[in-house]
Amino acid sequence: MVEDLVARRRRLMGPNVPTFYDEPLHLVKGQGVWLWDSAGTRYLDCYNNVPHVGHCHPRVVRAIADQAARLNTHTRYLHETVLDYIEALTGKLDHDLNQAIMVCSGSEANDIALRMAQAMTGKRGFIATDTTYHGNTTAVSQLSARRPPIGGQPGHVRLIPAPDKLPPGPEGAEKFARNMARAIVELEETGFGFAGFMLDPIFANEGLPDVAPGFMDAAAGVVRRARGLVLCDEVQPGFGRLGSHWWGHDFMGFRPDVVTVGKPMANGHPVAAVITRPEIMAEFRQAFGFFSTFGGNPVSAAAAMATLRVIEDEGLVANAQAMGDYMLAGLRTLDHPAIAGVRGRGLFFGVELVGEDGAPAPELAHRLVEELKREKVLIGRIGRHDNILKLRPPLVFGREHADFALVALARAFGRIPGS
Amino acid sequence: MVEDLVARRRRLMGPNVPTFYDEPLHLVKGQGVWLWDSAGTRYLDCYNNVPHVGHCHPRVVRAIADQAARLNTHTRYLHETVLDYIEALTGKLDHDLNQAIMVCSGSEANDIALRMAQAMTGKRGFIATDTTYHGNTTAVSQLSARRPPIGGQPGHVRLIPAPDKLPPGPEGAEKFARNMARAIVELEETGFGFAGFMLDPIFANEGLPDVAPGFMDAAAGVVRRARGLVLCDEVQPGFGRLGSHWWGHDFMGFRPDVVTVGKPMANGHPVAAVITRPEIMAEFRQAFGFFSTFGGNPVSAAAAMATLRVIEDEGLVANAQAMGDYMLAGLRTLDHPAIAGVRGRGLFFGVELVGEDGAPAPELAHRLVEELKREKVLIGRIGRHDNILKLRPPLVFGREHADFALVALARAFGRIPGS
Repeated sequence: MVEDLVARRRRLMGPNVPTFYDEPLHLVKGQGVWLWDSAGTRYLDCYNNVPHVGHCHPRVVRAIADQAARLNTHTRYLHETVLDYIEALTGKLDHDLNQAIMVCSGSEANDIALRMAQAMTGKRGFIATDTTYHGNTTAVSQLSARRPPIGGQPGHVRLIPAPDKLPPGPEGAEKFARNMARAIVELEETGFGFAGFMLDPIFANEGLPDVAPGFMDAAAGVVRRARGLVLCDEVQPGFGRLGSHWWGHDFMGFRPDVVTVGKPMANGHPVAAVITRPEIMAEFRQAFGFFSTFGGNPVSAAAAMATLRVIEDEGLVANAQAMGDYMLAGLRTLDHPAIAGVRGRGLFFGVELVGEDGAPAPELAHRLVEELKREKVLIGRIGRHDNILKLRPPLVFGREHADFALVALARAFGRIPGS
Repeated sequence: MVEDLVARRRRLMGPNVPTFYDEPLHLVKGQGVWLWDSAGTRYLDCYNNVPHVGHCHPRVVRAIADQAARLNTHTRYLHETVLDYIEALTGKLDHDLNQAIMVCSGSEANDIALRMAQAMTGKRGFIATDTTYHGNTTAVSQLSARRPPIGGQPGHVRLIPAPDKLPPGPEGAEKFARNMARAIVELEETGFGFAGFMLDPIFANEGLPDVAPGFMDAAAGVVRRARGLVLCDEVQPGFGRLGSHWWGHDFMGFRPDVVTVGKPMANGHPVAAVITRPEIMAEFRQAFGFFSTFGGNPVSAAAAMATLRVIEDEGLVANAQAMGDYMLAGLRTLDHPAIAGVRGRGLFFGVELVGEDGAPAPELAHRLVEELKREKVLIGRIGRHDNILKLRPPLVFGREHADFALVALARAFGRIPGS
């Protein structure tokens, strides 16, 4: 059955379609932190951040079903829900980020964020960190170093080493700022000029490196003095995943000019947004005359609103902090020579694995992901070497789920030589 | 109330957010071809193509609600519905377009189509028609001439006159092909090379000009001989709107290399797709390693599948033809000196308006859109001069709706001087 689906996928979707696991999972049902495959086996979801308030949360499902049955149009007509939502969303952001555009994906949101910086500065060049990922449109994927684009690496993008490649502490922050300054000079010299710096404030794709609040201060100052914009991609850390704060930039303590949000925003319904200050919004809308047919439609707005209300009503940010602390303490009791480090930020964890020689161990991480699947726990990998176990469960993660995962992890590590 | 919403929009969404009508409509409910505003007034929807099978069609609503309650994940796990849907969708396309990528918007789909051409040819240059619109991402919006991008018009894009600017008949088709050949030479000379030609096969944004099947033959031959790709944007004509055919390119009689679909695909749920041949898909996936979190999720696939089944089960393509013919005949009975031409393709109509001097009359078109709203009928405008009334109702449009619209049109034109 799984075999058939794999063959059908290849026939209908083509080659190189990414799947998880040596034998991909065929899922048929989800509820809360649990997923079921077609054989009826239940898995604890410690990977998926999109079902933020739990798979198939009844309030989100009902909001979608009710609004889909009542009206689904676009923002060329007036509708309250999109306004109610933008008001609620921007209310979660401190300072002056109080206008938003709703779109369908984080990629679309980041594509707009880049153009906001271009509209504001009249320049075209961007800086990003060197193992980041901000989405899949032509413009946004140019910030990813993984595959060289057709026509070669674009001249208007400079990638600077992410914090995991820098010295710890203030020295790293200073080096980061110096690299930023140098990249800005290069962009100005090549004629593209410097429009903005896009970052994930927790550097999730670089493996959630241990970066302290204040790390961005010097670099943000450099960006500001060069009149560029700080574009903060909150697709991964946003909506309270970090427990301590609603947003990654609040945890890190810097003030972005543009914030983008996506994946968990409507618990799986295709919704994303770009949030910024009025003067940036005005420049963008003047320069680009943007309209999205699906963006901010009443159903998407209702789904996002229900998700936001559930986060509040169920106290999920506080839960992310409490369960994050509990889980992190448990992860730190794991005892295996391959574990080089355990990091956590709310309900987002990285367990870094190395070989006997101390080198990154991506194969071992791969094996552990498979072993965890055998233990009915779904996790993934991150980091520039794919050697860091990624645990990032829905925010309705409770103590019993943490215990389930920790027992499974201990068993899985127990089967790895060296334990 | 409407006033409040307009002010709230400006505060929360910024300036220059497009709305329809001098006093924007505040809609609260939709059903079939009908929409209701907050005062309880009912309008006949002769504009919206997104609710293809009718606003809030119960089968589509149920499919969304059921799947949202069961499971919503992504294509890194296996799921049948996305495969069932791609199989059904590609089954509607003749020839060898039998693989697809699902995404969230037509913009995302066209952004991929451009990169498919780049991956296949190793080149970067594109040709489009001169008043077209293919979407809102950075890369796709560069094909639109409306606003100059930051940094100036991109060197890798050449816009050629759309058919409405060409002589009628074979002469126009030959000129179109010659312009294509010249643009290809220019792109090759500037070093970008020629990757592909993107078109809307019915040139909807250029006002649905009267182009006969076979028009594209010579131009498509020119593109082929230059080893470029024909990228066919079926977002507007697709899914049977033309009545005579499921797709615009089938009506026009040419074979595209890539087809994109969007808006009506899932009746308003944010879904779109790119369909192509296996060798193009393989080159794209090799070059770009594409993944979309929301693209092809089980709920989106279920919504698209339900929409496709309703089109079939309710015979909506045949209805588009029958009601298209009926409505077109009625539109041709409208008698006013400002009417320079009436065109139709299935349930898609253009009524071209000119002044006494024969020049395009956008102000008159604007006034008629407002007059029609007073008659409780929603229509829009198209064309390079915005002087063409656009009627493009949901496909569940019946004879009584056509009669309602025609009476309203006659009354509205009756209030325009000259009648």
